[in-house]
Amino acid sequence: MAKITPKGMRDFLPEDMILRESVIETIKGVYRKYGFVPIETPALEYLDTLKAKSGEEIKKEIFVIEGGEFGLRFDLTVPLARVAANNAFTKPFKRYCISRVWRHEEPQKGRFREFWQCDVDVVGSESTRADAEVIKCTIEAIEKLGFNKPKILLNNRKIMNGLAQKLNVKEKVDDLLRILDKIDKIGEDQVKKHLKQHFDDQTIKKVFELLKTTGTNEQKLKSAKVLSEEGAKELEEIIELLPDAEIVIDLSLVRGLGYYTGPVFEAKLGDEIGSVAGGGRYDTLLAMYGQSDYATGMSIGLERILFLLNKKKAETQKTLTQVFVACVKPEFYNEAEKIASELRKQGIATETDLNQRNLRKQLEYVNSMGIPYSIVIGQKEVETKKAKLRNMKTGEEKEIKLVEKIIL
Amino acid sequence: MAKITPKGMRDFLPEDMILRESVIETIKGVYRKYGFVPIETPALEYLDTLKAKSGEEIKKEIFVIEGGEFGLRFDLTVPLARVAANNAFTKPFKRYCISRVWRHEEPQKGRFREFWQCDVDVVGSESTRADAEVIKCTIEAIEKLGFNKPKILLNNRKIMNGLAQKLNVKEKVDDLLRILDKIDKIGEDQVKKHLKQHFDDQTIKKVFELLKTTGTNEQKLKSAKVLSEEGAKELEEIIELLPDAEIVIDLSLVRGLGYYTGPVFEAKLGDEIGSVAGGGRYDTLLAMYGQSDYATGMSIGLERILFLLNKKKAETQKTLTQVFVACVKPEFYNEAEKIASELRKQGIATETDLNQRNLRKQLEYVNSMGIPYSIVIGQKEVETKKAKLRNMKTGEEKEIKLVEKIIL
Repeated sequence: MAKITPKGMRDFLPEDMILRESVIETIKGVYRKYGFVPIETPALEYLDTLKAKSGEEIKKEIFVIEGGEFGLRFDLTVPLARVAANNAFTKPFKRYCISRVWRHEEPQKGRFREFWQCDVDVVGSESTRADAEVIKCTIEAIEKLGFNKPKILLNNRKIMNGLAQKLNVKEKVDDLLRILDKIDKIGEDQVKKHLKQHFDDQTIKKVFELLKTTGTNEQKLKSAKVLSEEGAKELEEIIELLPDAEIVIDLSLVRGLGYYTGPVFEAKLGDEIGSVAGGGRYDTLLAMYGQSDYATGMSIGLERILFLLNKKKAETQKTLTQVFVACVKPEFYNEAEKIASELRKQGIATETDLNQRNLRKQLEYVNSMGIPYSIVIGQKEVETKKAKLRNMKTGEEKEIKLVEKIIL
Repeated sequence: MAKITPKGMRDFLPEDMILRESVIETIKGVYRKYGFVPIETPALEYLDTLKAKSGEEIKKEIFVIEGGEFGLRFDLTVPLARVAANNAFTKPFKRYCISRVWRHEEPQKGRFREFWQCDVDVVGSESTRADAEVIKCTIEAIEKLGFNKPKILLNNRKIMNGLAQKLNVKEKVDDLLRILDKIDKIGEDQVKKHLKQHFDDQTIKKVFELLKTTGTNEQKLKSAKVLSEEGAKELEEIIELLPDAEIVIDLSLVRGLGYYTGPVFEAKLGDEIGSVAGGGRYDTLLAMYGQSDYATGMSIGLERILFLLNKKKAETQKTLTQVFVACVKPEFYNEAEKIASELRKQGIATETDLNQRNLRKQLEYVNSMGIPYSIVIGQKEVETKKAKLRNMKTGEEKEIKLVEKIIL
């Protein structure tokens, strides 16, 4: 029967996973340097935990376990909020989590039912220093992965809230944001049509005036200040805290999730590619899980990062092995394995022939895997305690001594 | 409502995860040195994939998604078999996978519904070299984690099969192994009682004679040879391939899983602790997923390893941060953050005050987290470009220069 990969999901073979693990390692390394520590939570949560905060759309996408008690998590923020609200952490609590989430969507190009998220969050700090720090370490992680410095788009929920208040539609601001968030998907005209079901023409006009504010950051902040003094001030502070970052205030930056309460941000690499990271402040979410606290965070889109890295790379890597120690005849296997052990002790990934193949077949394996170096062990090598290290690409050979410490 | 950790599962807080990630890193590093590469598969599989091979007991433990199409994987071997049977890998295909699995058991002490497995497997080698290699790298990983050299228990399914054939109960050998596997749980008397429902007294007597064979490895191999020439020979080969290992032939080693076909092995640390790793050859499993091939592998019990490491450790670590750069007043925050950036560039995990706290509160945070060093930045430090690095444990202070490259 269906002994295949589940629909909408992926098997990650070595050529994917080697790169994926190295990307995760790099991101982790940066987060750790800022003092973020890992937590992990179960893949399953009680269904009511998952439904407590989520919008109607995401509720439909939960993989529910038979019996209706548990569901698979659809993001890493809900579990963080649950854990942070139920443990007495020293504050600020700074955590990262690089792990998988599941959404039962109709599979479509580039979207999967299982995918990785890389989250970094600060719980328990009201200050924009926390917002600035999650942005700063995200920029550093992206650069460390070999990309140019990303552009940071910055907005503040308080500004749109300010406008909504001024226009007397404050109680409908969630509808407003939900519809505006679709602009990339369905276009401005469709968004306006949807808005007309909830708002009058004057309101829609004013909203689009705000979204389309152009000019320098200073000019945009000036317009923003009229709507929310506090919102504008927070953005000023973040800009000041990040003197090396390339920040652009973008008053049209909405970010779909309903739980954001303050600054929201996105990292972009060039204009043709969408954002590679995003986040924002969500000071009211934890209260839903029992204990109110400040929180802000950012998430790197691992799948998009990997897509971009794979596009840049000429060829994929299917092995990490550096050296293959072949043996001319089975009786030299122990000798080959001894040499391999010596190399492994030096940290060099080394393989020997697990299949009792003849020499030609062993070297076919080396080539097929793309292992860069080989050593062949036969009677002569054992007797003279010398062998040749062959560069499989150039054919170059170098004599090495089979003494205690093999020197490549 | 139930905003808590799901029943039978665990949240891994920093004090767990820091150690867990370092253990995983160590094990991974050893696997990679032997040329094993990572693969990952979805947490969900088609339910019929999961049920194809598994025994009745494990079938009851699958978390099934509503609709009955998908279930959560209960081990990493089934997904490996599915992937290996459906992809044209160069053979031998050597993969590791350190990831989570789920079983819907009744929660009990020390057993969880979600847990990590660390698997290393070779697909496509008939040779005992492959069995020896998975044992060898498992031993190395365990030693690298700081444990003594584990004792390896070795047996071969072919030996019990040989006895069953001799006693004319070959078609019931699965029942025999399934019941014998319970000996640790329910004791010898109960096992004998269960066996009596399937076998006559003479058979049971002969089986227990085999299980209780004592003596040296050579003596046990001699008894084994009578039942399976091939089985005994394979064990001899493995012993010869692992001259540095401490191997004990144990003819009572059953290992529950029905899919083993040849050598089976376990790694033990001392007699009071159960096994910390186990595995064996399963040459017929892949055929169930479409393409027959040889396979052997070993799995380290990560939960037991972590339990033992935690018992050894005096205190848990809840941060990785090395230095906290405090500021006397908010106006020195930018200076503190500049120093922190400099330290991070040198790979030193460093934090600054994200909460705009006074100095006393900042140092309380440092102590509460167990951060080993602090630097305090005030007017004087900024002016003189000098500061003091304080060892928080000893109180010792060392003057450092706040120049481009800070030297600790």
